[in-house]
Amino acid sequence: MIPQNFLADNQTADYLVTGSWSKKAVKEAKLFGNVNIVCSSEDTTFNYIPTERTYSDNPRYVHFTSNNTIYGTQFSTEPECPEGAFLVCDASSDIFSRPIDVTKYGIIYAGAQKNLGPSGVTLVIIRDDLVQQGKEGLPSMQMYRTHADAKSLYNTPPAFGIYMMKLVFQWILDQGGLEGVEATNQRKAGKLYDYLEQSDMFSATAESESRSLMNVTFVTGDETLDKEFITYAKERDLDALKGHRSIGGMRASIYNAFPEAGVDRLIEVMQEFETLHASTATSDSAGQS
Amino acid sequence: MIPQNFLADNQTADYLVTGSWSKKAVKEAKLFGNVNIVCSSEDTTFNYIPTERTYSDNPRYVHFTSNNTIYGTQFSTEPECPEGAFLVCDASSDIFSRPIDVTKYGIIYAGAQKNLGPSGVTLVIIRDDLVQQGKEGLPSMQMYRTHADAKSLYNTPPAFGIYMMKLVFQWILDQGGLEGVEATNQRKAGKLYDYLEQSDMFSATAESESRSLMNVTFVTGDETLDKEFITYAKERDLDALKGHRSIGGMRASIYNAFPEAGVDRLIEVMQEFETLHASTATSDSAGQS
Repeated sequence: MIPQNFLADNQTADYLVTGSWSKKAVKEAKLFGNVNIVCSSEDTTFNYIPTERTYSDNPRYVHFTSNNTIYGTQFSTEPECPEGAFLVCDASSDIFSRPIDVTKYGIIYAGAQKNLGPSGVTLVIIRDDLVQQGKEGLPSMQMYRTHADAKSLYNTPPAFGIYMMKLVFQWILDQGGLEGVEATNQRKAGKLYDYLEQSDMFSATAESESRSLMNVTFVTGDETLDKEFITYAKERDLDALKGHRSIGGMRASIYNAFPEAGVDRLIEVMQEFETLHASTATSDSAGQS
Repeated sequence: MIPQNFLADNQTADYLVTGSWSKKAVKEAKLFGNVNIVCSSEDTTFNYIPTERTYSDNPRYVHFTSNNTIYGTQFSTEPECPEGAFLVCDASSDIFSRPIDVTKYGIIYAGAQKNLGPSGVTLVIIRDDLVQQGKEGLPSMQMYRTHADAKSLYNTPPAFGIYMMKLVFQWILDQGGLEGVEATNQRKAGKLYDYLEQSDMFSATAESESRSLMNVTFVTGDETLDKEFITYAKERDLDALKGHRSIGGMRASIYNAFPEAGVDRLIEVMQEFETLHASTATSDSAGQS
């Protein structure tokens, strides 16, 4: 809806390409205007957030995806946004995982299903002046102005999902607000990355400056061993560790709702598995000697 | 999405205008092509389904709203559809209230929130060949082909709402399927309309051939008395009887989920109210004599 509402034929939008979601966003934007790729980490399977960035002369807006679920990378701070443009963020997979300065953004959009509530609700935060700048003459449902004017009640809203979000927001407040949630998230991810750093078997796939607090991706370097570990962990009730089919390996998705005790248990199981294989390897080599 | 996907600049779509939903649909269609109004009952506040209908020469499709929630009218059978066109139905407020012959339709769309489940899910039934005829080059989310190709999993679906719908479908099967549900709906609405026919105080607003089985609209003919009745009923736990603000009066929405016992109770309360006022009227006139 963003290029549809804000990008004209003769205008250019700047996109930071850091994963499959931003690639999809570029495809949609090209239907409406020009796209300049500010940077892309596709050359190394999106395992980092590029810091070399080339903006166009006069972009309408700058679009980025703050967290990349598949590749386990995340922007630690907002990218620059040239004067005259506004910043657009797909924050679907890390919204409300940490405090952000909303005044830096023109539009933030996020599906609810990671940190907010059940799937089927999208949260949009949009600057008042942008609502009014949006194109006119689009189908009513596809214009931000329709929803802003009707206070999000133009259509019958997904009331159950919104109610669930209210409960989640209350829970976030009970955690000490976004500061509290961020501290927990940093502790959770920190433990995992620390373990991966010192492990002889497992290693993180994302470069250290680009690592996500939400999705921790890692490998053993041996696909068969990866599979063996995923089965081993599943037998110990640690499910859904299989990495996305496009890159394989393992992925621990540790969104707000995932408990710190679960991370502790995962590290324990990884240690067990590593020890088990170290002793097998030792006895194997002992047998061969 | 229907005109956006199927109506070109030089094409005409035929719309039957029987209430505010079909009026809104016309407005959206005019963004994409020509609209021919087959018929309209706006002259008498939409209190009937017109039978005099003028189709255009070669419409792309024919659109109707099968049930009109505000005005309490409903198509008893599908309207005609000229050869070469396909029939489109907004069935949001009466889907699964009775069996229909889906082979007569090109597209049926319906919000879930009346008879299917919680708000936030839209059911679309679309003919395979039409999926392929839809325009290309639209935003991915706005093309039926995207959702058909991805088996409705292009985006993360609203899983909770869909699960609730499964439970509702199971309930419908337990009622004897759509035939069973229809029989109950006819009985429920039939009792109410029968009462309204013989009442000296209340009368149905919709013409007899056009009456809805889902929304029964009625008035006393006196706005003050209407309000008094709404309060009287509310005190007896019959809530939400106030008619839509655009037409006033009363509306009993008796969707699938509304129990027959509730209809019986409503009739009882209407009788009580009528008797109470008849005796007041008598004693008033006695006092005046």
